[in-house]
Amino acid sequence: MTDDTVRSAWAYLAAVAEPPCAAVANLVAEVGPVEAAGAIRDRTPLPGRHRDVRAATEARHHLDCAVDHLRVAEAVDARLITPDDAEWPAWQLLRLSVADTATRGGPPLALWVRGQAPLSDVVGRSVALVGSRAASSYGEHVTARLSSDLVLDGWSTVSGGAYGIDGVAHRATLASGGTTVAVLACGIDRDYPAGHARLLSEIASTGLVITEYAPGTTAAKHRFLTRNRLVAALSSAVIVVEAGARSGAANTAAWARKLDVPLGAVPGPVTSATSLGCHRMIADGQAHLVVDAGAVSRLVAPDGGRVGDSALGGRPVVTDRVTDILDETGRRAHDAIPRHGAVTVTEIAVTSGLTAAEVRPALAMMEAHGLVVGDGSTWRLAAERDTSN
Amino acid sequence: MTDDTVRSAWAYLAAVAEPPCAAVANLVAEVGPVEAAGAIRDRTPLPGRHRDVRAATEARHHLDCAVDHLRVAEAVDARLITPDDAEWPAWQLLRLSVADTATRGGPPLALWVRGQAPLSDVVGRSVALVGSRAASSYGEHVTARLSSDLVLDGWSTVSGGAYGIDGVAHRATLASGGTTVAVLACGIDRDYPAGHARLLSEIASTGLVITEYAPGTTAAKHRFLTRNRLVAALSSAVIVVEAGARSGAANTAAWARKLDVPLGAVPGPVTSATSLGCHRMIADGQAHLVVDAGAVSRLVAPDGGRVGDSALGGRPVVTDRVTDILDETGRRAHDAIPRHGAVTVTEIAVTSGLTAAEVRPALAMMEAHGLVVGDGSTWRLAAERDTSN
Repeated sequence: MTDDTVRSAWAYLAAVAEPPCAAVANLVAEVGPVEAAGAIRDRTPLPGRHRDVRAATEARHHLDCAVDHLRVAEAVDARLITPDDAEWPAWQLLRLSVADTATRGGPPLALWVRGQAPLSDVVGRSVALVGSRAASSYGEHVTARLSSDLVLDGWSTVSGGAYGIDGVAHRATLASGGTTVAVLACGIDRDYPAGHARLLSEIASTGLVITEYAPGTTAAKHRFLTRNRLVAALSSAVIVVEAGARSGAANTAAWARKLDVPLGAVPGPVTSATSLGCHRMIADGQAHLVVDAGAVSRLVAPDGGRVGDSALGGRPVVTDRVTDILDETGRRAHDAIPRHGAVTVTEIAVTSGLTAAEVRPALAMMEAHGLVVGDGSTWRLAAERDTSN
Repeated sequence: MTDDTVRSAWAYLAAVAEPPCAAVANLVAEVGPVEAAGAIRDRTPLPGRHRDVRAATEARHHLDCAVDHLRVAEAVDARLITPDDAEWPAWQLLRLSVADTATRGGPPLALWVRGQAPLSDVVGRSVALVGSRAASSYGEHVTARLSSDLVLDGWSTVSGGAYGIDGVAHRATLASGGTTVAVLACGIDRDYPAGHARLLSEIASTGLVITEYAPGTTAAKHRFLTRNRLVAALSSAVIVVEAGARSGAANTAAWARKLDVPLGAVPGPVTSATSLGCHRMIADGQAHLVVDAGAVSRLVAPDGGRVGDSALGGRPVVTDRVTDILDETGRRAHDAIPRHGAVTVTEIAVTSGLTAAEVRPALAMMEAHGLVVGDGSTWRLAAERDTSN
């Protein structure tokens, strides 16, 4: 099985259902991309637990554009990255694994990426700056200052590539010599909005333009909403700089809340309609009031974790036990790893009663916290830690 | 004993110690104003529990300016009101009775008042609007709009008569046909600041100018801080419209927090130094973010009580038992009133082990909540209420 075969399988899978598709993701997690792609393409009968795959791929299973998509991507200097790649931001995307898949909140199957920097490095310390397309000059000024100060503090920025606040955040980050990530709601070969074609190229020259949508996919309203979950998930904090009463930024803010990503909002004149949404979020206790880059940093704990809700008036939440960071699934997977010796994902799944698809993200989270060590095929508890407490 | 004798005694007591003076207040509560004034003036030896009275009145006991003060007040159409008067805002000032007297937070002994309206009526539904003297045009604009909208919603406004936000709040209330109260940090015969002499006259023509300081008293820094407690105590909510990093409004806000008066702050541009204090209060969870008169009304419960801190993101605090509204002192006083029959303050004091000075405000609070009924000399439990739960 060549790398190209695997890559083609991923490209096929990334396009065969509207992302995110939990059914396809579960099948891939269980049998791997090549077998999954083959089964979907050939309409191979699947076990009952995968019954949703057929319906989800009904419309597109016969359209094998993988080779085309990879070629188009290459033409715009884009690559396809998957959970198999070292730069896959597994830690950030874990947030989506635990989100309710009924609301299309699952992780992306794969990501198309323009730009040289490894994605996981760039989003390792990043802040999303989002806001109205119809930004005021005040909003633009604050966004520019905030972006620039965040760069000085070592943050990269994430936004949606749109006009208004998004565009200023990207531009000001670039102007300050920082790294910025634009998350698109269309194919990597599309420049949306068209007026930002040059900006997107500039972003890709030092930062990244990313999307989970296959080449050729057009921007659509539902894709903006789905895209917004990636903006929130990939960031250490989401800051709404300016938002009117019905701004799309409110959707990104809602994802931040849902994914437990620290959420800040910048106040503005009460006479300004474009600050209305920010004021509402703060008044309702959903967002922390943020005035500058220092306040953003305080929203995020130094270890990349988060300051708890008590930060509205109190002290950060402190995690006492190392396994407290794990959810119920994580703890079950952790308990299934023996004190001595290495085990495979399948062995952990059998011992814990979890599916392989549940075990993989749990292992990624444990690895990120130094609880386990993997060698590519097997996993063992990290020796230097006392995991008994 | 004529009314004039009593009034002169109050006028003497109001000037004989720097207000607020807990020692003098306790003596008056126990023996009444005429006897207290006589004892202080004549240096009559007092029981040990009143030992602080002598020191507090040492400097001024021989200066009996009562007649002068009443005459000067009359010349500027001012009157002296005391806890004996129907317009005494007993309910609001109760907040000060329970405050820490060590921080000069006690209630005023008496108040000098310019203006015809009964004080207790005016402050029965009032909002304090406070802020920087060096207000921005944004702050002035927001203050004017807020004042005007509050008047439409049936609120009177309270402020400190200063330049900047205070002045705009008073003027905009007057311009909207509303009632406004200026609380001075100097004698009622003084126009402070001098440039507001005409404004203070206009305020007094429909609203009220009040002070606890005797005629002739000059404004001083410590008096502004002491005055601020009255601004907070007399209001159903305190709103800081604009405040820099070291604004005096922060002191009024601190009093609001201490006295459990709902506190709001208006956000502004993060680029404006005069909004810095407001943003800090909101970010620290001390003040609720307020954008308009509607938000102010929501800060205050419809019955004139307050919405609890959970309003930052939750529901109003609900009081289940009628006696839950009372503090420990109040409950002791309440328990000392028999189920049937009327008792005097002294009898309640004896039964409860409280001092008369503690029993009086507790009775006022119980009366305000309809728990007890007084006939001027004795008190009984309100018959129509089931106070057993």
